[in-house]
Amino acid sequence: MTISVAVSGASGYAGGEVLRLLSNHPDVTIGAITAHSNAGQRLGELAPHLHSLADRMLVETTVQQLRGHDVVFLALPHGHSAEIASQLPAETLVIDAGADHRLESPEAWEKFYGSPHAGSWPYGLPELPGARAKLVGAKRVAVPGCYPTSVQLALVPGFTAGLLEPDDVVVVAATGTSGAGKSAKINLIGSEVMGSMSPYGVGGSHRHTPEMEQGLSAAAGVPVTVSFTPTLAPMSRGILTTATAKVKPGIDEATLRQAWASAYKNEPFVHLLPEGQWPATSSVMGSNHAQIQLAFDPHAGRVIVSAVIDNLTKGTAGGAVQSMNIALGLSENAGLTLEGVAP
Amino acid sequence: MTISVAVSGASGYAGGEVLRLLSNHPDVTIGAITAHSNAGQRLGELAPHLHSLADRMLVETTVQQLRGHDVVFLALPHGHSAEIASQLPAETLVIDAGADHRLESPEAWEKFYGSPHAGSWPYGLPELPGARAKLVGAKRVAVPGCYPTSVQLALVPGFTAGLLEPDDVVVVAATGTSGAGKSAKINLIGSEVMGSMSPYGVGGSHRHTPEMEQGLSAAAGVPVTVSFTPTLAPMSRGILTTATAKVKPGIDEATLRQAWASAYKNEPFVHLLPEGQWPATSSVMGSNHAQIQLAFDPHAGRVIVSAVIDNLTKGTAGGAVQSMNIALGLSENAGLTLEGVAP
Amino acid sequence: MTISVAVSGASGYAGGEVLRLLSNHPDVTIGAITAHSNAGQRLGELAPHLHSLADRMLVETTVQQLRGHDVVFLALPHGHSAEIASQLPAETLVIDAGADHRLESPEAWEKFYGSPHAGSWPYGLPELPGARAKLVGAKRVAVPGCYPTSVQLALVPGFTAGLLEPDDVVVVAATGTSGAGKSAKINLIGSEVMGSMSPYGVGGSHRHTPEMEQGLSAAAGVPVTVSFTPTLAPMSRGILTTATAKVKPGIDEATLRQAWASAYKNEPFVHLLPEGQWPATSSVMGSNHAQIQLAFDPHAGRVIVSAVIDNLTKGTAGGAVQSMNIALGLSENAGLTLEGVAP
Amino acid sequence: MTISVAVSGASGYAGGEVLRLLSNHPDVTIGAITAHSNAGQRLGELAPHLHSLADRMLVETTVQQLRGHDVVFLALPHGHSAEIASQLPAETLVIDAGADHRLESPEAWEKFYGSPHAGSWPYGLPELPGARAKLVGAKRVAVPGCYPTSVQLALVPGFTAGLLEPDDVVVVAATGTSGAGKSAKINLIGSEVMGSMSPYGVGGSHRHTPEMEQGLSAAAGVPVTVSFTPTLAPMSRGILTTATAKVKPGIDEATLRQAWASAYKNEPFVHLLPEGQWPATSSVMGSNHAQIQLAFDPHAGRVIVSAVIDNLTKGTAGGAVQSMNIALGLSENAGLTLEGVAP
Repeated sequence: MTISVAVSGASGYAGGEVLRLLSNHPDVTIGAITAHSNAGQRLGELAPHLHSLADRMLVETTVQQLRGHDVVFLALPHGHSAEIASQLPAETLVIDAGADHRLESPEAWEKFYGSPHAGSWPYGLPELPGARAKLVGAKRVAVPGCYPTSVQLALVPGFTAGLLEPDDVVVVAATGTSGAGKSAKINLIGSEVMGSMSPYGVGGSHRHTPEMEQGLSAAAGVPVTVSFTPTLAPMSRGILTTATAKVKPGIDEATLRQAWASAYKNEPFVHLLPEGQWPATSSVMGSNHAQIQLAFDPHAGRVIVSAVIDNLTKGTAGGAVQSMNIALGLSENAGLTLEGVAP
Repeated sequence: MTISVAVSGASGYAGGEVLRLLSNHPDVTIGAITAHSNAGQRLGELAPHLHSLADRMLVETTVQQLRGHDVVFLALPHGHSAEIASQLPAETLVIDAGADHRLESPEAWEKFYGSPHAGSWPYGLPELPGARAKLVGAKRVAVPGCYPTSVQLALVPGFTAGLLEPDDVVVVAATGTSGAGKSAKINLIGSEVMGSMSPYGVGGSHRHTPEMEQGLSAAAGVPVTVSFTPTLAPMSRGILTTATAKVKPGIDEATLRQAWASAYKNEPFVHLLPEGQWPATSSVMGSNHAQIQLAFDPHAGRVIVSAVIDNLTKGTAGGAVQSMNIALGLSENAGLTLEGVAP
Repeated sequence: MTISVAVSGASGYAGGEVLRLLSNHPDVTIGAITAHSNAGQRLGELAPHLHSLADRMLVETTVQQLRGHDVVFLALPHGHSAEIASQLPAETLVIDAGADHRLESPEAWEKFYGSPHAGSWPYGLPELPGARAKLVGAKRVAVPGCYPTSVQLALVPGFTAGLLEPDDVVVVAATGTSGAGKSAKINLIGSEVMGSMSPYGVGGSHRHTPEMEQGLSAAAGVPVTVSFTPTLAPMSRGILTTATAKVKPGIDEATLRQAWASAYKNEPFVHLLPEGQWPATSSVMGSNHAQIQLAFDPHAGRVIVSAVIDNLTKGTAGGAVQSMNIALGLSENAGLTLEGVAP
Repeated sequence: MTISVAVSGASGYAGGEVLRLLSNHPDVTIGAITAHSNAGQRLGELAPHLHSLADRMLVETTVQQLRGHDVVFLALPHGHSAEIASQLPAETLVIDAGADHRLESPEAWEKFYGSPHAGSWPYGLPELPGARAKLVGAKRVAVPGCYPTSVQLALVPGFTAGLLEPDDVVVVAATGTSGAGKSAKINLIGSEVMGSMSPYGVGGSHRHTPEMEQGLSAAAGVPVTVSFTPTLAPMSRGILTTATAKVKPGIDEATLRQAWASAYKNEPFVHLLPEGQWPATSSVMGSNHAQIQLAFDPHAGRVIVSAVIDNLTKGTAGGAVQSMNIALGLSENAGLTLEGVAP
């Protein structure tokens, strides 16, 4: 059986990564490849790394072009995907790599996005408690944001196990520049970003913050508050998340390790590293892998969890393909690798 | 049928890349993984990106460990592979990623390596005229050097077609630092190489020079002389080769394009880009792909050919796996991708 | 008047940066340049960027070589500088870029360094309250660590003004690889660090932690606890510090801004950026400048302060030269620039 | 005496670098700072690394704004500088960092730029034979292009000494991305350029080619033909030029070395490195220094010369300031450093 798949937003980095993964997926045929301002161009001009699709033409992103496929991936600016998805048949599996359907709370959505809430969909982070079951057979999937993927993978085991205080999570994360999109802006040109690190979205304003709090709160059973600061690092791909939370009284490092080890012991794509080994983003480059390590600082009373993912793979397109695989009952790792391209 | 494969030199970058590719190869089982100074360690400590093999232990590189596999990959310093290969059974497919068996001329070998010549093997660059036929069924394969791979792919079509003068080829190439190996040297540390470019092996002293001349001379039917200058670029992977040769009188750009287009039109892993599109190393990152473009400069009387490969993949481990596939009659692209990990 | 200066540890990055700055200092003459394992070599071989000193020979680091200068810079491993300093005349200005004399608490020293405490010296961070006065005329100066420089500059104004809670400071910082020294280690080679971010010294174990707490506690008047996580970024120079602290009830962002603006309004080398402009490490590359910005996150109850410095300049050698200038009554900015080398 | 200086095009990289150097120049006062699309903004918003000028406002680039200064630096697109310069008083020293007045040949200008030739000015590469004398007292100076600076410094000594064949120079150069300007283009964003090398302007089409040939031909006394291929490297600054030329019969390496050593032995900013030491672009970062090394390849009959400069400093703004110093009779190295910011 071959599954027909359409990919919209294919001229961006997220859409391109979906195509890269699908090119090596044993069960799919790539149908329509759509874009907006780049419609009418050969894919090879825009994404020369996708050679097997180089002669495919980008068509305009419309419901007509996307209809008639078994699966539609949406890699569109927020607002656009909700509009298009609402016009696609209910039996089509729609996987939205954008933000429109991630948040359950209309209030949180409106506060951070300033527009009406389009409703939430099953959440494409299968490693969360209960998430995989909701994805099986689903026809609509909201792919998590890249930062929320890493932050939830970093902290959920501790909250699920009841080991962490909910009121003062502090997260600082560094992302590669592809996280800022394929966008011609002066602050993103190589001369500006190479050899430099800088923060952005500081002070609680980043739109991924409520998504992190949603997942951590669900795990904790009480509201969790996150101080989140993203930074831009001089690399194309990768997220290194440093997530810290106060540990409840009486908990020691062994108990903490046990919670994380247990949460991920059967996961194909998320692993706690052996004690003493710290992760590096290069280890997961191009793979769907998340590597995690933690340490307890008794002096500060905090656990510090480091998590690395490739923002475009596990953080976006890989998570999307993994969710598709689960939704359709395919092998969960079809089209995905556990091996990073390193060095 | 599953093919058992041993990989020696697995703690280095070439050996690690062979393992990365084999991890996703549908027809092989990875047997012994050997090293020398790192024997006794978990692979996961040395190569955390190879997670599916993380718990495998490195064993000492000996004939005993390597014997008994269908295929043995050697990623060893020159001199070592010849010695080990001579003790492996004739029916074992031995693929040497090192230099020992690349050169046909004992004089060239001795001049550049200063030791006795161990004899030449079928040459693992299937895109050369006649090379694929010699690889089918071969039990010994010499994988080309990374620079010679790119230089021969860049220029052989022009020499084969008789369009280029043999006496004054000039090549300048830039390589990522992985080409210098996983070696703890001050001049290779990040602080020294980031933000910097530098030449090395200047003046005809680089050991890959006679290998380039061997391949180009064979294509030309007369001796070809190459001036080769390698440079080190601030990136981990990739080679950008700029190869120039004088064009014979009366030849125009269309004739040149036709020669390259024709040479590569049926190749799975080497492509001449559409006119006007120049290659970038990022497009082939982690893939077995070579992208090529050329321009004729009538003022200087030279054709300039740009070729990009990933030095560790098509330049080493990918070429090795491609050669294995051909030698064993597998699908030539098994375990290999055409899509680069970009951006 | 010309001041004679000796520089020890000149083959390392800190010593090299001291020499770079002194080469353009109007008031000094560079005398002995010393090293240990590299003694006997031309400086030009080891530090080709210091062309005006290229033909100077490195001599062995001994008291004899250092004696007889007006100023001695020590850029040595901890333990070594205390030993040498104790043998230098009391009238020599000794500026220690190492750790030996930074900590006032013998207990903190012994806990983190495991050796007897050598006593504390006037602290070379003139922007701290009261620090400049202690540096005037001093004959011994302890240059702060690079991370503590950035963290104290980031947070001291808030503690001095009584606006911050002392019990839960969280700091995550990213440093360029030169912070790890000129050391031939596999984990520092370019192939490993380019395109990658990774944490180290996680869980409260980094030796700069007690130094941060010392300075913040002095400013707060009560003990301050810091959770500190350093990370290694793919760039040669620069530190981006993200420092967060809980804000006392009733304090708003305007009050916070006012405290920082007031603290730095007359400082030559430390500046709060205009509201809305966030710092980047490239802006201070090679300069003695620290750029700072802050935001208040009322939801999380924290102020987030971003501070950027060049770890080798304001974070080490520039701070050392600035301290020398103050100690000797020279112009505080002699030999130092406020302009970064950007892009 | 203080010299008043205006800088136009100050929002670009060349103009910014002129300002950085002038900020530390002992003899000048910076007057008007002009731009076009960024007029009306604070300099600190656009160039946060120029802190001492952060509060200066950019004014529109007009003759009125520029008039009344002793010196005017033009860092404008070609065509614009000629127009403005023609309206500035003859007694004003006008230093054009653009291309308009570099070429002596109207035919070459029209062929490569497609517009009428504005005439040539004294050429701001003082290290060329006879160039310094023409700069003394000059009121108009054409600053060389960055590539031509490095190529002429690399090869002129050999042509002046009559050691090189004029008919087949091959140059391949790698530049940092700042050479492509501060321009918001997709192909220049960090995600595209980091970890990647690519060629551009291949086949003799780069506009710097006739400028190289002009200088080399003048040195050789006969027309010199250059095949020039520029490449873009993943770094912000720096040019590594690999320049090769055929050596005349009977010339050996010692004779070659002697020619270069002799040409540069008294130069303050250009040096032949000791034998065996190869240059790296990081060594000259931010400095006005050019480092050169050469090797003779008797097999290929070519000399290979490596030259490194900072494209923005010695390649543009540093060369401009050096020329100003000579024209006005100031110390040639005022405001310039020989020390690179490394690592």
